[in-house]
Amino acid sequence: MKAYLGAISGNSYKVKILLALLKVPHEVVMIDLKNKEHKSAAFLKINPRGEVPAIEDGGKLIWDSAACLAYIARKHGGEQWLPSDPAGLAEVMQWIALAATEIQCGLQYARRGVVQGRWTLGSLEDGQAFGKVALDICNSRLAQHEWLALGRPTMAEPACFPYIETAPEGKVALENYPNIVKWMERCKKLPGWPERDRKSTRLNSSHVALS
Amino acid sequence: MKAYLGAISGNSYKVKILLALLKVPHEVVMIDLKNKEHKSAAFLKINPRGEVPAIEDGGKLIWDSAACLAYIARKHGGEQWLPSDPAGLAEVMQWIALAATEIQCGLQYARRGVVQGRWTLGSLEDGQAFGKVALDICNSRLAQHEWLALGRPTMAEPACFPYIETAPEGKVALENYPNIVKWMERCKKLPGWPERDRKSTRLNSSHVALS
Repeated sequence: MKAYLGAISGNSYKVKILLALLKVPHEVVMIDLKNKEHKSAAFLKINPRGEVPAIEDGGKLIWDSAACLAYIARKHGGEQWLPSDPAGLAEVMQWIALAATEIQCGLQYARRGVVQGRWTLGSLEDGQAFGKVALDICNSRLAQHEWLALGRPTMAEPACFPYIETAPEGKVALENYPNIVKWMERCKKLPGWPERDRKSTRLNSSHVALS
Repeated sequence: MKAYLGAISGNSYKVKILLALLKVPHEVVMIDLKNKEHKSAAFLKINPRGEVPAIEDGGKLIWDSAACLAYIARKHGGEQWLPSDPAGLAEVMQWIALAATEIQCGLQYARRGVVQGRWTLGSLEDGQAFGKVALDICNSRLAQHEWLALGRPTMAEPACFPYIETAPEGKVALENYPNIVKWMERCKKLPGWPERDRKSTRLNSSHVALS
């Protein structure tokens, strides 16, 4: 499996987490976001959305972080990370939805505006308010449960963690969400949970130019 | 199965479509969005996000439109609507992601701002630009394929259709996306595909007050 990732990309970090937790052998292809390689003609053939992450496995291309997580979870994680029964699957999907909507378009876009000066949708206040909907739901859920979706870690954890962890960079303090803070500590103790890349450098891999 | 839906809610329409296509017996509970019943204490117990749709089946509660679709597809649709193999599942998940991010936060929020004067994230132009990313991807995909994810209709169709159909209400013309227009026609010809509710009235159901 080849994983096309970007340094300091939270969506890439999601894939990096699940690959590490499940010990999936893979090759990392770093996409140079600073020089807009993700918008190049070569990369748009891999992902028409022009974003990292994407994965390639046996000639099959998958784009979007949640789709990549689902592929990895289903192929390498048995029933634990993405169950196939209707109720378990739907429980996981609820948190994938929060990750794609309120967490991505709220917390992450607020943070990206602050950190990179790039505002995709609305103001800092818009993004913060939208993102807090997700934080409230997660914090309530985690008052009574150790993990987001089920009685064990699932792909909801790598899907939600990265842009919740960086919420403070978008000026959303996590101290108001104590159950989330404890959940983040539990996540980081899962065997194999990898560190986030904090610098815009290579992600433990040499850069492989796209052909 | 009970489906908690709202009239003129596109996310409710997604669930209505799949229930109709799969002929799933169900009871509709209409939530009175005009009077903010979706933000009432009674409804927040069903969906902490305070949104329609949600479903209840054998005591199990599911919120979020994509999670509802996944539940219905997996329970009642065999392998057709949401396959369980890694590659097929991931193909469908790609389009679910577009529906949750660019289509929801782009096309739908632009439209909601125009129609209801309620701006969640950014300006009309922000939403239009973000939503057009999804339209470009869908239009390219549909140049070579009849359906979004696989060689047959899947849950990607009900997930993406409703807020693509209403894009013109957010001042995004669909004439520029001829493959999408043809795909919408194919969708509407699927046996059982229901009409959208165009008025803020009951969705073929009497209102059942939440207890």
